Amino acid sequence: MSPVPSVSNSITVRLELPARVTAVSEITTAVSDVGGMVTAVDISESGTERLQADLTIATHGTRHAAEVVDAISQVDGVEIGRVSDRTFLAHLGGKLEVKSKLPIRNRDDLSLVYTPGVAKICQAIAEKPEDARSLTIKRNTVAVVTDGSAVLGLGDIGPLAAMPVMEGKAALFKRFADIDAFPICLDAHDADEIVRIVKALSPGFAGINLEDISAPRCFHIEDRLRRELDIPVFHDDQHGTAIVALAALKNALRVVEKELSEVKVVMSGAGAAGSAIIRLLLQAGVVDLVVADVDGIIHSRRPDVVRGDNGNLAWIASQTNRAMQDGTLKEALVGADVFIGVSAGNILTGDDIAQMNEDAIVFAMANPVPEVDPVEAGRHATVVATGRSDFANQINNVLVFPGVFRGLLDAASRHIDDDMLLAAASALADVVQPEELNPTYIIPSVFNPQATKAVAQAVEAAARRVREKGEEGAG
Amino acid sequence: MSPVPSVSNSITVRLELPARVTAVSEITTAVSDVGGMVTAVDISESGTERLQADLTIATHGTRHAAEVVDAISQVDGVEIGRVSDRTFLAHLGGKLEVKSKLPIRNRDDLSLVYTPGVAKICQAIAEKPEDARSLTIKRNTVAVVTDGSAVLGLGDIGPLAAMPVMEGKAALFKRFADIDAFPICLDAHDADEIVRIVKALSPGFAGINLEDISAPRCFHIEDRLRRELDIPVFHDDQHGTAIVALAALKNALRVVEKELSEVKVVMSGAGAAGSAIIRLLLQAGVVDLVVADVDGIIHSRRPDVVRGDNGNLAWIASQTNRAMQDGTLKEALVGADVFIGVSAGNILTGDDIAQMNEDAIVFAMANPVPEVDPVEAGRHATVVATGRSDFANQINNVLVFPGVFRGLLDAASRHIDDDMLLAAASALADVVQPEELNPTYIIPSVFNPQATKAVAQAVEAAARRVREKGEEGAG
Repeated sequence: MSPVPSVSNSITVRLELPARVTAVSEITTAVSDVGGMVTAVDISESGTERLQADLTIATHGTRHAAEVVDAISQVDGVEIGRVSDRTFLAHLGGKLEVKSKLPIRNRDDLSLVYTPGVAKICQAIAEKPEDARSLTIKRNTVAVVTDGSAVLGLGDIGPLAAMPVMEGKAALFKRFADIDAFPICLDAHDADEIVRIVKALSPGFAGINLEDISAPRCFHIEDRLRRELDIPVFHDDQHGTAIVALAALKNALRVVEKELSEVKVVMSGAGAAGSAIIRLLLQAGVVDLVVADVDGIIHSRRPDVVRGDNGNLAWIASQTNRAMQDGTLKEALVGADVFIGVSAGNILTGDDIAQMNEDAIVFAMANPVPEVDPVEAGRHATVVATGRSDFANQINNVLVFPGVFRGLLDAASRHIDDDMLLAAASALADVVQPEELNPTYIIPSVFNPQATKAVAQAVEAAARRVREKGEEGAG
Repeated sequence: MSPVPSVSNSITVRLELPARVTAVSEITTAVSDVGGMVTAVDISESGTERLQADLTIATHGTRHAAEVVDAISQVDGVEIGRVSDRTFLAHLGGKLEVKSKLPIRNRDDLSLVYTPGVAKICQAIAEKPEDARSLTIKRNTVAVVTDGSAVLGLGDIGPLAAMPVMEGKAALFKRFADIDAFPICLDAHDADEIVRIVKALSPGFAGINLEDISAPRCFHIEDRLRRELDIPVFHDDQHGTAIVALAALKNALRVVEKELSEVKVVMSGAGAAGSAIIRLLLQAGVVDLVVADVDGIIHSRRPDVVRGDNGNLAWIASQTNRAMQDGTLKEALVGADVFIGVSAGNILTGDDIAQMNEDAIVFAMANPVPEVDPVEAGRHATVVATGRSDFANQINNVLVFPGVFRGLLDAASRHIDDDMLLAAASALADVVQPEELNPTYIIPSVFNPQATKAVAQAVEAAARRVREKGEEGAG
């Protein structure tokens, strides 16, 4: 249960109540007695003896909402009407709209937007395909692609049930980076089939944001698409998470005055996000990195690595754990400077964190339940971050993906590479000014307008450098 | 060349001219002398001796625009600056925008639109997939799908160059029926591959509008998608054209007081549009129907029909031409009541039309050049219609496709059938009131708001009847 009732669990209760002076306060007291919070009272009808009112109430969730309604119904003379859920109400009809940028008022407008005028625009693009970026929506349009196989913490719920997340993602693209993103939820599971489909539908887009596709399929899909498409492909669950984690780590290390190249980093989780974080940490200069999964520390003599049926695991074993440490995650943590968790909730205790080196840094990013209770961790670590919005230092991809794509689109980039990801992480870290930096503020808020802007500029500059290098090479 | 200069061929010319009192009128005269028309003069800078002005000029097309600019440059003291094309200017950056319907102002909004709030919406849909129609954009969203193989009269220009048409189509969906449509331009040519892709991306859509896909692939693609998908699939080039042609024919027959079941109809063209018109005319009650293509009248003894390598041709031979007439299109026309052309420009003369029955009806729908000059045809026929906006009686799909999909979406229809197409045609015909009906007004204007509304209501009612029948059948 969240510590405070949340607006995303808000309900609106229509009720009839007697027109006595204490009636509303009796109800709000009943609500707060069971842990709810009345956030609005709207009287919809009033008579001499009875009132009709709509109460908006923040609750802890579906079950708690039922308790709240039950408590209200106990108040003398109150009758409960329709109960509606604010989140459901907000989602009615979906969250996106496709609009025409041009008015179509008369025959002239029509002949400009459609036939016959549009024919010469088509011809111009047929003759010079690059012009599609200036004469169509391609320039500013990103596909948010999923197969619904790993949606939030909900697992393989399929393409239809994934729609609300992809629509939300598209809404965030617009809100934070003025990008026109459209959800493409695929009823397909075979990785090569998904590659074929995304390649086929790519002409109208300037970028592909892969989303919530399960590992290890997501590695293969992204890898092939990056090699075979001429627009950038970015799996946010991997690289968005990696960029924001690296940015937070850079600032956390500034707080404790340690160097990236000197610290021992221990990670829990070798899935999509974990693998991308490993890759970026190594690129950024981390040397001492040990990774554990459900079977313990990954090293090159572990039987499943030796068997060789998981290429990703083999890659991790080959690139990390130079000391060939074996054993459990808890054993790895002894003396470590940094813990980064992208695995499962409540796998560590405060005692485990106490075994870490002085001035320990703990990123417990499992959601909604972190790897270790952040309050417990805070007793032993200097810096604690989570994926949750109700604690300090939220590691949130929203800080990254809008700016990354804004930069890529502004540079008309055909690719994305690790240098761009590293540039994004540095830029995001530097949004926090030296005088602002402290253990509870290592990463900006998602509503800090500098975050997207800084990331976009850094990615655009890095993408332009790549292009210039390419042109020099070609010339 | 169009009879009047068109706004879709407008150019804007920036020029410097001497500040003498007659300078502007000298320029407008020079423009009109070569057949252009100045539609706006904006002075952008003014000095004592020189002016800078932006002239907007309607022209007949790219070559004519160059002549116009040349004529202006001959005016004494005038210097030409940048010349820009209004249609190109209108298309800069593309024509569509994807917007969030909900504001994202703060943390509360974010938790409603995205995590954590969105999770329960996903769960609700996972448990009850039908709820996707109320809780996502699916309900009001249509994919405009093409492979760019038969775009306007331009042929196989590919998916990228097809984008401006598909964006325009999406803009029309929004303008005329408040439908959120999104262009999906596929880099794929194999018909079965296109079917697989459209099936895979269908979950987020409530309808598929196929567009500008070449025959005979379009038949196979539509046929398979209709059988295999649970949302309606409509190839506008076929069925949109067929509906509007049938609506126009119904009213034309009212003008000449003849019956659908008694007239002899001759058609030219057996491609995508032609085949759909044949099908709908037969469904509507036409009995005497003869179809010709480039090889003459289609009948079951024609060698290519006998060989049997074209299923569509065989179907036409089996369903039309009961008198087994052979010969040329011109021969078929002798004594015919109705000619419908969806083939090529200038294949008939006024003399051919003169051979038709009294009170002949001529729909010469090839674009931009009709099968017969409409002015010539008008000397011998009572009713003449074309696909062009600069003659009376324009047969224009814009009258149909927005309303068809509005009706399908409002009924949450899973299919589309010929009854719905027939209902749409009748409703569109009936928008023209008996007192309005005359040889030059057999079909409403595209900006008549009743057109889309009437079509939508008729299709919705027909779709609901189908569903009720289905439920009775099931129950």
